[in-house]
Formats: sequence, structure tokens, C-alpha cells
Amino acid sequence: MTIWDTRRTAKAERMTAGSAYSTGKVVDPAKLGDLLQDVIRPGDRVALEGDNQKQADFLSRTLADCDPNRLNKLHMLISSVSRSEHLDLFERGIADKLDLAYAGPQSVRIAQMVEDGTVQIGAIHTYVELYARMFVDLAPDVVLLCAEQADRDGNLYTGANTEDTPTIAEAAAFHDGVVIVQANEIVDTASLPRVDIPGSWVDFVVQADRPFFLEPLFTRDPRHIGPVEILKAMIAIRGVYERHQVVSLNHGVGFDTAAIELLLPTYGEQLGLKGRIARHWVLNPHPTLIPAIESGWVESIHSFGGESGMNRYAAARPDVFFTGADGSLRSNRVLAQLAGQYAIDMFIGSSLQIDAEANSSTVTDGRLSGFGGAPNMGHDPHGRRHSSAAWLDLAHGEGASRRGRKLVVQMAQTFRAGGVPTFVETLDAVEVGKQAGMPLPPVMIYGDDVSHVVTEEGVAYLYKAHSLDDRRAALAAVAGVTPVGRTSDARRVEGLRRDGLVAFPEDLQVETRLADRSLLAARSIEDLVAWSGGLYDPPSQFRDW
Amino acid sequence: MTIWDTRRTAKAERMTAGSAYSTGKVVDPAKLGDLLQDVIRPGDRVALEGDNQKQADFLSRTLADCDPNRLNKLHMLISSVSRSEHLDLFERGIADKLDLAYAGPQSVRIAQMVEDGTVQIGAIHTYVELYARMFVDLAPDVVLLCAEQADRDGNLYTGANTEDTPTIAEAAAFHDGVVIVQANEIVDTASLPRVDIPGSWVDFVVQADRPFFLEPLFTRDPRHIGPVEILKAMIAIRGVYERHQVVSLNHGVGFDTAAIELLLPTYGEQLGLKGRIARHWVLNPHPTLIPAIESGWVESIHSFGGESGMNRYAAARPDVFFTGADGSLRSNRVLAQLAGQYAIDMFIGSSLQIDAEANSSTVTDGRLSGFGGAPNMGHDPHGRRHSSAAWLDLAHGEGASRRGRKLVVQMAQTFRAGGVPTFVETLDAVEVGKQAGMPLPPVMIYGDDVSHVVTEEGVAYLYKAHSLDDRRAALAAVAGVTPVGRTSDARRVEGLRRDGLVAFPEDLQVETRLADRSLLAARSIEDLVAWSGGLYDPPSQFRDW
Repeated sequence: MTIWDTRRTAKAERMTAGSAYSTGKVVDPAKLGDLLQDVIRPGDRVALEGDNQKQADFLSRTLADCDPNRLNKLHMLISSVSRSEHLDLFERGIADKLDLAYAGPQSVRIAQMVEDGTVQIGAIHTYVELYARMFVDLAPDVVLLCAEQADRDGNLYTGANTEDTPTIAEAAAFHDGVVIVQANEIVDTASLPRVDIPGSWVDFVVQADRPFFLEPLFTRDPRHIGPVEILKAMIAIRGVYERHQVVSLNHGVGFDTAAIELLLPTYGEQLGLKGRIARHWVLNPHPTLIPAIESGWVESIHSFGGESGMNRYAAARPDVFFTGADGSLRSNRVLAQLAGQYAIDMFIGSSLQIDAEANSSTVTDGRLSGFGGAPNMGHDPHGRRHSSAAWLDLAHGEGASRRGRKLVVQMAQTFRAGGVPTFVETLDAVEVGKQAGMPLPPVMIYGDDVSHVVTEEGVAYLYKAHSLDDRRAALAAVAGVTPVGRTSDARRVEGLRRDGLVAFPEDLQVETRLADRSLLAARSIEDLVAWSGGLYDPPSQFRDW
Repeated sequence: MTIWDTRRTAKAERMTAGSAYSTGKVVDPAKLGDLLQDVIRPGDRVALEGDNQKQADFLSRTLADCDPNRLNKLHMLISSVSRSEHLDLFERGIADKLDLAYAGPQSVRIAQMVEDGTVQIGAIHTYVELYARMFVDLAPDVVLLCAEQADRDGNLYTGANTEDTPTIAEAAAFHDGVVIVQANEIVDTASLPRVDIPGSWVDFVVQADRPFFLEPLFTRDPRHIGPVEILKAMIAIRGVYERHQVVSLNHGVGFDTAAIELLLPTYGEQLGLKGRIARHWVLNPHPTLIPAIESGWVESIHSFGGESGMNRYAAARPDVFFTGADGSLRSNRVLAQLAGQYAIDMFIGSSLQIDAEANSSTVTDGRLSGFGGAPNMGHDPHGRRHSSAAWLDLAHGEGASRRGRKLVVQMAQTFRAGGVPTFVETLDAVEVGKQAGMPLPPVMIYGDDVSHVVTEEGVAYLYKAHSLDDRRAALAAVAGVTPVGRTSDARRVEGLRRDGLVAFPEDLQVETRLADRSLLAARSIEDLVAWSGGLYDPPSQFRDW
């Protein structure tokens, strides 16, 4: 006789065990460690949030303090491994296997721990890919999440940084996993500003010892934007945004795209592009987008997460941002990813290293930093079927094979700080992948998915190349005197310019002499605060006044 | 002075207007028409559910009865245009623009209405693509949804067919749109089996005059599976599933894949494949999968929607299906799509027409039937970064460019009923697209995304082809005596077999003489009921006993 409800039975047992430390769903914070030790079982698959920005750190710190004799061999699913206790779990013998998406701040330590055999990596994913597997072959037994507020029935208010909480909660709540949530506050139901996740999905809530950790990942201080970023931004606006009439888009984070955001109300306005380009956005609330929003460029923004300091501003601009009935920002990574894949015309982002075939990676040394979300935005989704002007402008193929293409644009300066070339014959990722025993090199965006590369030298229109040789030549033409750029041949380049595979600033009527900071709509964080009418509250590390 | 809350102000006005016909959130069903006329405004963008299976038909019928002098120029977003009143809206002058994903049963009428200028089509999308645009450039002003039960606070229980309700609700609830929901029943909060969507997202609920319409789209009667489907299934199991060790997968709907499902516990078992292949599934609860589930083949199934008659069975198999705290099935199209794109190794489905380059379409005459979900499942998602054995088995590229590939398998019989060839030089879709003024032909799956084609003649391993010429030759080799197949050259075929681009049944040790109905684990709907231990309740149209 087959037993078909092992997960349900196990959950019932876990719930009984946990109830010793809770009143209804509300856990005594002093007993959280006991609850985790009794609810979680050795060998369990445990998802810990672990998002791009917010961290369920009361839960992760408490889990890392558990007794390894009681709790061990855990298989952790952590989308962003960004806190030291995430790895302490492995050093203390509580966990031994890790599936992840990103490990920015812990990337050196994780590489070492993999080499030492302390951590066994399942795979490195993109964010949504890791969540996708929670519905297929990595169903979690227990999930540890965070929220701003909870009521005693488990109804959750996630605040502006909803990010991944509903998705991970769903993977557990609807497959007999246990959902445990830390909240900054436990309040009366009537005091909840809105319900982001219904209480019927949540098993236990605990008031955290302090508000969950949140990193302002999407704030770029305009002070650090110099003439080279501004020149690249001018080239991108003329050579890509204007040329292809890009209406809907996603900006990766970085000073290159921040410069573009700050040039729309100045340079973009002078070119008469307002209302014609960059109207619908999928991105986190970048503070550097404030001047463009205030100038009436932006019709809508849907966000993967929030951004520290931007909550009052977003709440005051509800025609632009997605907000709830309470008036505050609502984000949702999975839906923003869906929008970014299927509803927008362009992804543009920066890269640290690009090879001669336009493969790119942010892995540039012994770090195991992972992928995050760029690979999902940075490819042409073949499942798209609706047309737009920009998408059709890159159409290719004949007859039944004819279709448009998403603009996937990489921005890079030919040399990074310290004279390190960005364009290289072979990505460091190839060697890093080998050393870490990965089945494939950890490439962020594949060259054949890249439609344009923008540098301070010009634009390579890679999508127009009919052969790999043309692609390489077009890329080399904008790669300056890097190893890749030095392969460039002047006569060949003239041909590529004539055929429209390469454009230099003069071809785009970009006046390079104008590329200075006076063109920025805001030159400091203070300027952004002023643009926002005092609604933007920069985090303390960005204040110097 | 810019006004930043036009949507919020409009929503407040709409809510006030609607409150004349409701007590709290609960609308008097007799006043629904009045409410719609006062809440919706001319020119509004209105999303009507309209899913693959379930239909908010009380709302759509009532909307179609509204006064066109009061309500007109609506821009409708309907993922599945499947009911006559969906088009009556246009004939009556209430709506004039339509964005859609699928129009199966209405495909002839819609084509005619486009030609007559009665309907202006925005675009034809895939399901998730249309939802994605609701977060970008097609934010709805009002959404009309359906649920099994609601309480007076608007908390919703969607039952097994959650499908798209949470996604469309989110697009409106978090951007100052109005959310109106029909429920089969309005019950006390304590009687709700679980909450699928929190009441704080919902503005109005109305008890429907009869339960929402639900179509059993995924039920295939084994009685109609003949020896050719069985032979193709044997070839697919040996030539694709076994060869590539496919562990996680999605089956399109159709008799071909139903045959595979019914052969796993017989032919698959004889081959010793149980536990080695087809363990994790993303698909609706196909009744024909019951014998494989009962035989222990299936570890997990995550579903886009439900299926009529399968609810008691799914609820009794919670280790396999995703179910809620109440014990009943939970589905979610967007998350199943995410899983289908990023977490599984293979999509396999049938096609009605395939051209010489393996482009395929289900558009085979003057119908404007749309895309549904197949293009999203039927492409290689370039944003995937984790590896699996099957995915790596199709690896291609060198150095940084090396990566795996999703198996995208098309099944087809060389000739359809009536001697119509499946393999043709040019898809009918090319002409249909031209006639309908579409910017591109409505191709379902592009040839360059297809890795394998399986026919009763054998398997074409298209992913192994190094040139378009090789692809065409490999495809022709399994295309029988169709116009495409007749181009095949016997000596060339021998080379392709040697090189592994083509395999015939004898190459795969498939004994064609065994291909008969005795190999099916169930030969009728009654057999499926028996396999389920009486838990499967087939819809009446599938009962003949």
C-alpha cells in the first residue's frame, strides 16, 4: 500500500513540535532556536530568504546558533548568500549542501569553503531559476522568510521590499512545507496596512530582535559619474535609444546606466526624445531616475524589489510606481522578471569583462559570485510573440522564421581602473569555472544574445553581423587598445561603419566635447533629494551633509 | 504642478460609484450591470478572465449586456477568447480593441470580425506575455475575475483552478485598478477552505448566477489512441527519454503525449526506466498520467491549472501534487511557466503542421487561434544557468560559449486525417499572417528552437545538425512521403543515421510489431477511473457507461 501523504504527515508532526514554543502562530522569540531545532529535521531542504536586498537575519542568526548534534546535513536554498552566518551554517556542520543564485559579499569565502569541501554546491542559478526549481525538484521542507509586519493569524505586510517572499512562501505553503516568518513587528489585524501574503499560507511568525537587514543596492551617487560615463551615456542615447525608438526597458545597476538616467532630462530633452523613448520601465526604484520622473519622462515602473530611502517618494508618485491600497510600493521579483522577459524591448547593463565574441561575466578573479538576475534579462526570449517598433527593428530571418529580437546591450569602458582591460581574449570565468569544478564556465550573458556593445569609442551593432567574423570585427572596432581592440584593422572598420555594424560618436552626431558633468540633471545625492521635493530619504552612508 | 495620483483619484471615484450597488464589498447580483456601467468608464482598459480553462462568464455576460451608449471604446485584455459574449462585446460596440493570447473556439469568428474592422487587434501574445504587459504598458483599469468562494471581506478561494487569478489581480490591486470578482458562493470567513488571494486586493465580489464555466481541456480518452500514436510513443521513450535520461519535463496536451503517459508503466517499466526518467513534471493534472502516478513513476507535478474531475484524485495524492492547507490542488500558471522555462529539461508536444526547417504552427487555415503557452515552453531559455544530465547532453559551443540546451521535441504523424501532409514546404501560418495584417507569421515554435522531431518513421536529432542543410535533411528523413519527406535522398539518410542525426525504429531497438493497444496501461476512461481507485470523476461528456 503506497503512502501518498508523507509530506503532510511530516508537516503535522512538525507543527505539533513547534506548537510547544508558540501561542497560536506566534512564536516566543526566546524560544525560536528550540522551535527551529524541533521543526526542522536533519537532512531537510530549507529555503532561507536570502533575497537580493532583504535578509531574514533573525532567523539565519538563530539557525546558525542551533546545535549541530540536533540539526545537521541541511540542504540550504539561499538565493543571495550575503551574510556571514549563511556560511557559518556550513562551518558549524549544520548544513552541508547549498543551492544559490548570488554570493556577492561572501564570494571569496564561499570559494574557499568549496575548495575545502565544507560546502557542497548543488548549482549556481539565477534568482528565478532557483525559485522555479522549488516547484520541481527542490521543494523545500521548511522556509524561513521575513516581513515588515505580521498579525497573529500570520497575515503578512512585506512593505516595499516584497521581492521573493510570496514565491518562496507559495512553494512551501502549497506542498506541505512549513512557513516560518520573522516580522519587524507583530500588530493587530486592523493595523496591517495591507495584506501581501494571506495568513493561511503562514505557519509561524516571530517578532525579530531588530528590523531585517536591507541593503541599498541600487543607489549610485552621481558624484562618482565622470565624463567617460557621460560620453557612453550620450552614445547609448543616440545610438541605441533614439535609433531604435526604445519605449520599454530595464536598466541594470551601475554608474553607466545611472548616467543615462541623469541625461534623459537634459541631453535627451535637447534631442526632443521625451515621450518618444524610455516610457515604461522594469527596475528597482533607482534614485538616479528621480529627475527623469519629475520631468515627466516616465509613465510606469514595475519593480523587482524596493530601495532604501525611496519609499516616501514612490508612495507620492502612484501613477508611476506600483503601490498597494495603503499607498506604499509593492514589488515582486518573479512578476518583474516576467515583465522584463516578455514585455520590454531592451535590457542594458554594464559588464566587467567581455571576450572577443561578446561573452561577458562579472566573475573576474577567484570569486564565486553567481549570477543574480542579469542572465534572465540579458537574453532574447524566444517565447515572445507580440511586436513593437524596437523589437521589429532588429527583425531577422525569412518567411516563417522571421521574428523580432530583444535589444540586449552591454556597456563597458575599454579599460577599468588601474589600466585593466575590459576586453580580453578569454574570460577569467573560464578558469574560475574549471577551478571550482563547475560543468560550464560561469558566463553572465552569452555573446550571441548580445545585440549591441557600447563603449566610449562607439557602438558595435552586433545583431547586424552575418558571421562570427563580422561580430568579432565589429566588437574589436569599439574595444580601444585592449587585446581585443588591437586586432582591429582600419580598412575593415571603415567597411563596418559603412555597413552600419559600427558607429563612432561622429557618426551618431554625439559631440564628445559636451561630455562633462554639467550635463547631469543631478550631480549629487543632495541634488536628488532636491529633485524629489524632499521625498527621497537617502540612507546614512550616502549623506555627507 | 504635476498630478501624480490620477489613477488613485479615479479609483476612489469608481469605488464611490460602485458602492451604490453593494453592501461593503458584496455586490447585489441584480445590480451588477449597473455597477459595471458606473465603475467602468468609456475607453478603459479592462482585463477579463478569460483563462485557458475557467471563465468569469457571469461578468462577461453581464458586461456584454451593458448599454453601449454608456460603456464603449473599451480596450479588452482577454487571455483566452473562448466565449461568444467575448466577441459580442465588440459587435455591440462596447469594446473596440482586443489584446489576447488564444482564441480556440472563437478563432473563425474573430478572423471575420478583424476583417470587418469590428475588432482591432492590439497583438496576439502567449499567456504569460499578456500578463507581463499588464505590469508594463497594458496596466488594466478594471479587472473581472472568478473564484470558487469569497467571503464578505473579499478573501478568495480559487479552488483547484487558480490559473491566472492572482497575477491579474496583482496587476490591478497594486496599480489602482478596480478588482471585481464573481464567486460561485459567498461564504463566512470561517468556511473558506483557504485563502488564495487576500481580501485586501479585492474591491467587489458578486455571487454568480451559476458556477463559472470550466472546460476539461486536458482530458484525452485512451480509446482514441491507436497503433501509430503508440509507435511514436515507443520511439520517443527510447529515442529521447531514455537516450537523454530526461528527468524533468512538460507534456503538451494531445494523444501523442497521452500515449507516452500510458506507456510508462508498461513499455517504460519493461525497459527498466522507472525512477530513471520522467520523475518531475510541470503540467495540468492529465487523467492519462494516473497509471504512471499509481505505479510510482511520478515524484512531483506542478500545475498551470486544474482539470475537471481530477480534484478528488489530486487531493488524495499530496506528495505528488501541490495542494494547500485544505488539502486541495493549488495551481498557478505564472509559476508553472517559470518552472517550465527554468527548472525542467524537456518540452514535448504535438504539432499540426511543420515546415522543412521545423518551424511549426497549429494555425492551418483561416483561423486566428493564437498561441496559448506552447511558445514559452517550446524554446530554449538562454537565461538558465544550472546543469542537469539531459541539458548537458545537448551541450554545444566551445570555451566561454559552451552551454547546455533544453530539449524541445515536436511529435507529429507524417499525414493527418484525410491524407493531409503534416510536413509542408510553407506553413499556412505565413498566408494567414499576411491576410490578417500581422507583422509576422503566427509561428508556434521556431525551427531553430526544436531539438528533436519524432514521427512514426523515427527521430530527427536536429540539435546535432551543424548546418541548415543538415537540419533539413534530417527532418526530411523522418517526414515520410510528404512534400518535405520526398526530398530525402537514401544515401544521404544512411550518412545521417551513421552520424546520429537520424534514428529509425530498428536503430532504437523499437519493435514496431509490439505497437498496439495492448501496450496501453489504460484503454478507456473507465480504466483510468479504476486505476485511480474511484477517485477520478470524469466529466459527463467522457462517460459512456
